[in-house]
Amino acid sequence: MPDKETSRVEAFSDGVFGIAMTLLVLDLRVPHAGAAGAPRDSWSLLHALLALWPSYTSFVLSFGTVLIMWVNHHGLFKHAHRADNRLLFANGLLLLVVTFVPFPTAVLAEYLNKPAACAAATFYCGTFVLISICYNFLLAAVLPNRSPDAVGSSDHEKALARVRWAYRLGFAAYVVATVVAIFSAVAGVAICFSLWVLWVVLNYAPKRQL
Amino acid sequence: MPDKETSRVEAFSDGVFGIAMTLLVLDLRVPHAGAAGAPRDSWSLLHALLALWPSYTSFVLSFGTVLIMWVNHHGLFKHAHRADNRLLFANGLLLLVVTFVPFPTAVLAEYLNKPAACAAATFYCGTFVLISICYNFLLAAVLPNRSPDAVGSSDHEKALARVRWAYRLGFAAYVVATVVAIFSAVAGVAICFSLWVLWVVLNYAPKRQL
Amino acid sequence: MPDKETSRVEAFSDGVFGIAMTLLVLDLRVPHAGAAGAPRDSWSLLHALLALWPSYTSFVLSFGTVLIMWVNHHGLFKHAHRADNRLLFANGLLLLVVTFVPFPTAVLAEYLNKPAACAAATFYCGTFVLISICYNFLLAAVLPNRSPDAVGSSDHEKALARVRWAYRLGFAAYVVATVVAIFSAVAGVAICFSLWVLWVVLNYAPKRQL
Amino acid sequence: MPDKETSRVEAFSDGVFGIAMTLLVLDLRVPHAGAAGAPRDSWSLLHALLALWPSYTSFVLSFGTVLIMWVNHHGLFKHAHRADNRLLFANGLLLLVVTFVPFPTAVLAEYLNKPAACAAATFYCGTFVLISICYNFLLAAVLPNRSPDAVGSSDHEKALARVRWAYRLGFAAYVVATVVAIFSAVAGVAICFSLWVLWVVLNYAPKRQL
Repeated sequence: MPDKETSRVEAFSDGVFGIAMTLLVLDLRVPHAGAAGAPRDSWSLLHALLALWPSYTSFVLSFGTVLIMWVNHHGLFKHAHRADNRLLFANGLLLLVVTFVPFPTAVLAEYLNKPAACAAATFYCGTFVLISICYNFLLAAVLPNRSPDAVGSSDHEKALARVRWAYRLGFAAYVVATVVAIFSAVAGVAICFSLWVLWVVLNYAPKRQL
Repeated sequence: MPDKETSRVEAFSDGVFGIAMTLLVLDLRVPHAGAAGAPRDSWSLLHALLALWPSYTSFVLSFGTVLIMWVNHHGLFKHAHRADNRLLFANGLLLLVVTFVPFPTAVLAEYLNKPAACAAATFYCGTFVLISICYNFLLAAVLPNRSPDAVGSSDHEKALARVRWAYRLGFAAYVVATVVAIFSAVAGVAICFSLWVLWVVLNYAPKRQL
Repeated sequence: MPDKETSRVEAFSDGVFGIAMTLLVLDLRVPHAGAAGAPRDSWSLLHALLALWPSYTSFVLSFGTVLIMWVNHHGLFKHAHRADNRLLFANGLLLLVVTFVPFPTAVLAEYLNKPAACAAATFYCGTFVLISICYNFLLAAVLPNRSPDAVGSSDHEKALARVRWAYRLGFAAYVVATVVAIFSAVAGVAICFSLWVLWVVLNYAPKRQL
Repeated sequence: MPDKETSRVEAFSDGVFGIAMTLLVLDLRVPHAGAAGAPRDSWSLLHALLALWPSYTSFVLSFGTVLIMWVNHHGLFKHAHRADNRLLFANGLLLLVVTFVPFPTAVLAEYLNKPAACAAATFYCGTFVLISICYNFLLAAVLPNRSPDAVGSSDHEKALARVRWAYRLGFAAYVVATVVAIFSAVAGVAICFSLWVLWVVLNYAPKRQL
């Protein structure tokens, strides 16, 4: 029964993660044929498609980040054996912010190559600071819901300590990215991209442990 | 077999709830760089993003409300052991109204800080009156589908009585919110927000019982 | 193993049905505050919201029809115990047409109260003729995939005969609706609405048998 | 436990495939009644709907291709019994490109009957080259995750050899389609359509083996 409770929350969260990732494609806007200055031949359409690079960058960056968040979400829920109020609300808060991701992504796509790039990048990175905070809440909410068998085990405690450390580092790194983005949009976004790599290394190398 | 029937309806409903919640983000519109009066530097973009507060408010309010409705939906389906026609139709009606939520949310986001705010808020609150009515239908449809073991049990009857009371109170509260919204949009929306708190308290404190 | 095959196809189809139903809400367009002749006070917003009645009609009609199609889809898949090529392709064809439904719905919503209403209604009803044809294909594809136990049983054969009759009647009725819609949009749409009632009666009364 | 890991990845991937397929309908744009030169009577609306043939073509082509990719995805995951890092990342990369499909589809729909058709068709076919590459990565990632029982079996090896051959052929065919599309948009798109048929024949005839 309590196990069924968790699996239901997980399946629902999976759905929300998946839809949020897929909706990102709606930010890619076709250069319209009817508009003034619209592409009239193949070269100008090619040019127009290449000019969308800020949209592609935002799309790939957000997709990858949400995908890693999804992997982490499951890694965390493996430790949960019951679903109490605190867990349900921490998870709901996280889903709220994950669902929000397509909006800062669209803002970044629109402004990355424009004078307002810094505000867009700061807004984008700031969203991930918020998500990091929610992950730390979720971790705190999972702790009292672990199965009694797991609590004493040293393997389990080590895995959790690693998660805790990674989450705190993630939070700090996104704060740095946000502060950097105030001065340089490109540098802020580059930090977000490199956090991908860091996250992968922390969670998967030398072998997948969580 | 009858159990499989219920779980299928639940999984389908979960999907619809999750998509309805995620589609809410599409109401957040990027202030476009090409338009007249568009943000040209970081300060004006920041200003434009902050000016979207009615959209953020509507997004958070609707997301939270649909999330709570999802939790209640499952709480209610725990009592259902068969899925007869009446249950399927009551559930279909509920899903119809849940799917509709992004529309009044978008209307509220567009008009909350404009002269037509009262009509928008009344329309928004009225939608939740409709949803409350559908929940009461669903409760009525679940009653004849309970498992024979549960029907006599006093714990079960107490839990159901609590749900029934909460649903009637929810209906009354949303009617009040709708009437108040005719005169003050902000007050109507504030009642919807406070219903969140009420719902959480009723369902989760002192411990989760449903 | 073959059973797992069917359940996977069903879960995937459920997802597509659910998303198609939820996307219908995107056709409901907020009367925008910035446009010329936009609603400036509560009365004119209320008026603008009421003027969207063709959108609400299309939304409710399509939602209900797709919901009934989903119920029928599951009723049909209960009879399938294996998933061969023919079944997979018949199901894929059906999903293609179901996914298409939001488009004729949007066309109907845009033109139901305009001079071009007949073309819109004919296009809308014609889509359901296409869906009826796909359901008849799916029924034909399910027959060779039944479990050996079921094939002989008279209850099973009766249930299938009932489904076959209902599907043929549904096809004929949608053809009539389409032809009627050429001359009167309202009459065509009214037939679609009344087919809802017919479907419900055929499938659920006197008790749910399929 | 490792089996649960795979089924979770599969369910998540199913969701992403399903949503990507369903979002394709959003590219079908209603000819708007308010615009200049908008359809005023049934004949002109009918004409406007028929003029959307490039959108219908793109919709059906992309829907069918993603559906076949979904079938192949499952065929491949049947061989996977564990989910290591490499598999998770290869799968994530594939989902990224699948999620991207609605964008080149929209570009093709907009430009297929315009002078810039070749660039649009090349972009469209090129996306499927990318997807083919991802499928080959995924195949490579599945190999070390097979169950020990399966590895030796000659049936299993034959099935895998067939998949490998089909994937390489698919890659080559999409490269040809892309090169052809540079010179003739229609020919490139026709190759994509015929690859559907090829795929179906390779995977399902004479009987479904993978």
